[in-house]
Amino acid sequence: MRQSKLFSKTERTPPKDEAARNAELLVRGGFIYKNSAGIYSYLPLGLRVIRNLSAIIREEMDAVGGQEVLMSALHDKKYLTASGRWDVDVVYKATAGGEREPHFNLSWTHEEIMSEVAARYVSSYQDLPFAAYQIQTKFRHEPRAKSGLIRGREFLMKDLYSFHATEEDLRAYYAKVGDAYRRIFERCGLHAIYTLAAGGDFTAGNTHEFQVIAPIGEDTIFVCGSCEYAENEEVSKLAEGDSCPTKCGGVIRREKAVEVGNIFPLGTKYAEAFNLKFTDRDSSQKFVVMGSYGIGVSRLMGVIVEMFNDEAGIRWPAAAAPFRAHLLALGGGAGDEAARKHADAVYEYLQRSGIEVLYDDRDASAGQKFADADLIGIPWRIVASPKLGDGAVEVKARDTKEAKTVSLKELIVEIKEHSKV
Amino acid sequence: MRQSKLFSKTERTPPKDEAARNAELLVRGGFIYKNSAGIYSYLPLGLRVIRNLSAIIREEMDAVGGQEVLMSALHDKKYLTASGRWDVDVVYKATAGGEREPHFNLSWTHEEIMSEVAARYVSSYQDLPFAAYQIQTKFRHEPRAKSGLIRGREFLMKDLYSFHATEEDLRAYYAKVGDAYRRIFERCGLHAIYTLAAGGDFTAGNTHEFQVIAPIGEDTIFVCGSCEYAENEEVSKLAEGDSCPTKCGGVIRREKAVEVGNIFPLGTKYAEAFNLKFTDRDSSQKFVVMGSYGIGVSRLMGVIVEMFNDEAGIRWPAAAAPFRAHLLALGGGAGDEAARKHADAVYEYLQRSGIEVLYDDRDASAGQKFADADLIGIPWRIVASPKLGDGAVEVKARDTKEAKTVSLKELIVEIKEHSKV
Repeated sequence: MRQSKLFSKTERTPPKDEAARNAELLVRGGFIYKNSAGIYSYLPLGLRVIRNLSAIIREEMDAVGGQEVLMSALHDKKYLTASGRWDVDVVYKATAGGEREPHFNLSWTHEEIMSEVAARYVSSYQDLPFAAYQIQTKFRHEPRAKSGLIRGREFLMKDLYSFHATEEDLRAYYAKVGDAYRRIFERCGLHAIYTLAAGGDFTAGNTHEFQVIAPIGEDTIFVCGSCEYAENEEVSKLAEGDSCPTKCGGVIRREKAVEVGNIFPLGTKYAEAFNLKFTDRDSSQKFVVMGSYGIGVSRLMGVIVEMFNDEAGIRWPAAAAPFRAHLLALGGGAGDEAARKHADAVYEYLQRSGIEVLYDDRDASAGQKFADADLIGIPWRIVASPKLGDGAVEVKARDTKEAKTVSLKELIVEIKEHSKV
Repeated sequence: MRQSKLFSKTERTPPKDEAARNAELLVRGGFIYKNSAGIYSYLPLGLRVIRNLSAIIREEMDAVGGQEVLMSALHDKKYLTASGRWDVDVVYKATAGGEREPHFNLSWTHEEIMSEVAARYVSSYQDLPFAAYQIQTKFRHEPRAKSGLIRGREFLMKDLYSFHATEEDLRAYYAKVGDAYRRIFERCGLHAIYTLAAGGDFTAGNTHEFQVIAPIGEDTIFVCGSCEYAENEEVSKLAEGDSCPTKCGGVIRREKAVEVGNIFPLGTKYAEAFNLKFTDRDSSQKFVVMGSYGIGVSRLMGVIVEMFNDEAGIRWPAAAAPFRAHLLALGGGAGDEAARKHADAVYEYLQRSGIEVLYDDRDASAGQKFADADLIGIPWRIVASPKLGDGAVEVKARDTKEAKTVSLKELIVEIKEHSKV
């Protein structure tokens, strides 16, 4: 894409109303627009990142047999009353046309809706197990919405729900989804720690979170420096310096961490609320056993930016980056038609080679182009200039200091070799 | 996909609470689930249709230079106050955490949000023109929500907004988007008529709608039987039997029609509300001229079903169909391992040939499988049975009566030949 056509623009000065580094950089880079506290719109560059993350998540959800759906955002009071979750502080309620009493809440999670749908289709053990997921907008009235994309009032979430005949089957699937989550975070360049956590609003028993150690994190975890066994402070009796309870010989550290995913064994709580039963092999009627599994997709984007940035801007991991390469046309000012043609030719060559490229064809100074490239943070920066000689460009990875001059052919090999996701 | 794994199921009996044919068939086929009046969830088959329609729309929007974004659903009161649209009857308002007064409305259209975003980035004539679009969820408190996906309280919409330095530039782009809309509807198998319409809430001047003649339509249009010049009753002085005002020699008919798209020249209304100005070549400050352009994606799905069905079920046009082919394994009951293996081999062959196929591998009767295939309405029905001989299958198009026996090779050619979109 030609940067001169991109309607968003980079900004030199940090926004005054953003405390979090992820929001600062994403706003300055033109990835997102802040509509209100905790409420953002995704501009073209930002939506490309969301798409990339969503594609990874979809692949891994499909691989564990998840069937994609898209559930409604307006949830009728009757569903929330059935589960006893109509009056929850963080939930928005919707009214219209002079109604005095709200009839709907806004989706903050979908256990109720999904249980209701499942009750329509499940009647026999032969209908189980199955799992359905969506990537959909959630709403939560967060009292503090100061962490950019990490704690939004409106945010994108992938939520998966699984339905089983037995607790054992749920446990086996739960472990499988845990593995899928590990792969997702790894592909996004994040090291996420599997952490024992409290039941929260969803279930009485223990659950698990995937935590990324980061200063912006609002959670505190106790984690073994050796085997990475971890517990959330909320449920932990560990203390810093303790020996690891797995007896691996490691020592427990206390860390700030941000949750990027969570998995909940729900048992039969929602099945009971929605009369979600099946006839088992022995003709007995049983409640379906459920699990639910979440990843905040927009939060994931925020965490990636928190983990991958330097003083000059973002350093996107390849899998998340809005483009694979950022081509800068230098010496191509209004008076230099030859330089512009030269850069145009490189742009077309890259596109033909299957490289998604943002092409900085703007009439701007070299200094501004370099600064913007660092801010936007695309993994490969390519400089096209007639001075480099025929068929040659300068290439620099965002996370290295030194640039080198290579032929176009070498460039393609280099990019493809180093961008495998 | 194996139908035995699909968690949704077909239903013999029409739902009691659906008056519209599209909703009846889509619910019975397991495409959608009705959560409340006018509020539906998309199940795996339904989401596949939405995806196909969205892909067509994206292609055509990208082709007219639209940049995809995703704007927030919660709209701060300050934006709606600026445009004078805070108190609109059909708008839902959101409150949370014991607030007495709502601070947000729920997205029903995005002129305000998009104008605010544009005001951040537009300063010079060089920043114009540009256009941004999204496919996003909209909410409207429709008093009557009885037309299934055609009039939803929660629905998916593609909305495009364009920004111009001059009225002439807007007019040229408006015509270009009109052409893109024609292509979109045509690719979806619909014949949409370009119809002069009232300004509605958006603009004082005239606008245009794309109307599909259908008994379920809530609009009435006067349309020339010859050149298809058309006017919405709301703005028309024509009457049935009149001569066409274009002097083409045709005669005006009166028809019920359903709107599938609309395009609005907005002028400077929102630019004035959001102080969206630019410095022109002559250094003068001017307001940006805007247009907005909508297509209801979920409505489009409903209209397609209204137009393409028979007593047995849906007849999807190829471009919208959830799968390209529906493979039925016959004679493959629990006791017939050979028949099942035979059908499995056909399934794998089709997948290897790049045909997206729903594979009815259920332990069900031939009659039930045929009936479900007609209800779900995938364009090609393929029967695999050892009785047909080695490497042969029976194929029938959904919209023809006669089936024929062909080799697998001929089948692939036939499907690919006739499914070009």
